[in-house]
Amino acid sequence: MTSSDLLKQVEFIKEIDKLKYIQRKTKLLNSDRPENDAEHSWHLAMMAIVLAAHSNQPIDLLKVVKMVLIHDVVEIDAGDTFIYDTQKNHTNTDEELLAAQRIFGILPEAQAQELILIWKEFEEGITAEAKFARSMDRFEPLLQNTSNNGGTWTEFNVPYQKVYDKKKVIKEGAETVWDYAESLIEDSVKKGILKKS
Amino acid sequence: MTSSDLLKQVEFIKEIDKLKYIQRKTKLLNSDRPENDAEHSWHLAMMAIVLAAHSNQPIDLLKVVKMVLIHDVVEIDAGDTFIYDTQKNHTNTDEELLAAQRIFGILPEAQAQELILIWKEFEEGITAEAKFARSMDRFEPLLQNTSNNGGTWTEFNVPYQKVYDKKKVIKEGAETVWDYAESLIEDSVKKGILKKS
Repeated sequence: MTSSDLLKQVEFIKEIDKLKYIQRKTKLLNSDRPENDAEHSWHLAMMAIVLAAHSNQPIDLLKVVKMVLIHDVVEIDAGDTFIYDTQKNHTNTDEELLAAQRIFGILPEAQAQELILIWKEFEEGITAEAKFARSMDRFEPLLQNTSNNGGTWTEFNVPYQKVYDKKKVIKEGAETVWDYAESLIEDSVKKGILKKS
Repeated sequence: MTSSDLLKQVEFIKEIDKLKYIQRKTKLLNSDRPENDAEHSWHLAMMAIVLAAHSNQPIDLLKVVKMVLIHDVVEIDAGDTFIYDTQKNHTNTDEELLAAQRIFGILPEAQAQELILIWKEFEEGITAEAKFARSMDRFEPLLQNTSNNGGTWTEFNVPYQKVYDKKKVIKEGAETVWDYAESLIEDSVKKGILKKS
């Protein structure tokens, strides 16, 4: 590890401070204060650690934790895309790939490559680690919206079926978590905070 | 994994959302906006991942990451104690132990015990993992204060020797990071943002 590596690493550590300014649409639990990406990433990492045993498949937990900690770093350049946005699709835009290359590219080469690969793996959602990480990413806003009287569902008029389809990704990572998530969605319909049409 | 375990885990996940409201004295980089504990914990986890190779001793990185992610959770009950506070010593107060027992105690028994032990290990600062985690915890505010024209050093009139003594803990975890940290401290004296007396 050379001193020039350390300088690059410190530069990266400083650069990612900007994630604390990227606001999500979703609000904190029982709150109207928007969550930022750094807080969100911390919460997903805690969820992954605490819920790891619910993964459908064996997982490398350190990899999952790295994945959720870095999954939104590209938003420093590309901005947050709302999951129910009808204009812009979140998945793997060119803008995000450029952002990953620029931001992780601040690091020494081998580390940059490692983190870009982990980020891509998350985006592709194929491996056991990516499936579990993505299930955490879908589960957190469900807890938030149900605590906030519908939250962004109400705010942006998102119908039941759209929510259900997005949330069903949880099942691919963790069936027991999905069973619980599904019950929260059905309860939300009963409470009138999520509309069937 | 029983369903009652999942309910406890979800309860814990909801409870720790409160960490996003605990404000630190230190401000974000080049900013006057205080950092909160969730953002701080995320940043330390990223630093641990990126700087792991600088650890003086071999470390279990997943354990270090867990440590920094949870190290401030007790502040939900006990509040943030400023490191240069002359009235209240941060280290292992009874209040913090009670907080750890209450908050981690929301989890299923085995998980609660695991996280309480990891938290205590961090506080004691004896193992290789704890030393490295603590060096990250001391290094982040150094980057922040040097970017903020002295930041909390200036704001609370903290003299050089006090800063130097607190920061020297970095050396126990990562000597190469300490060499760099020490140069930042000396530069700060030259720039007049840290006073020798």
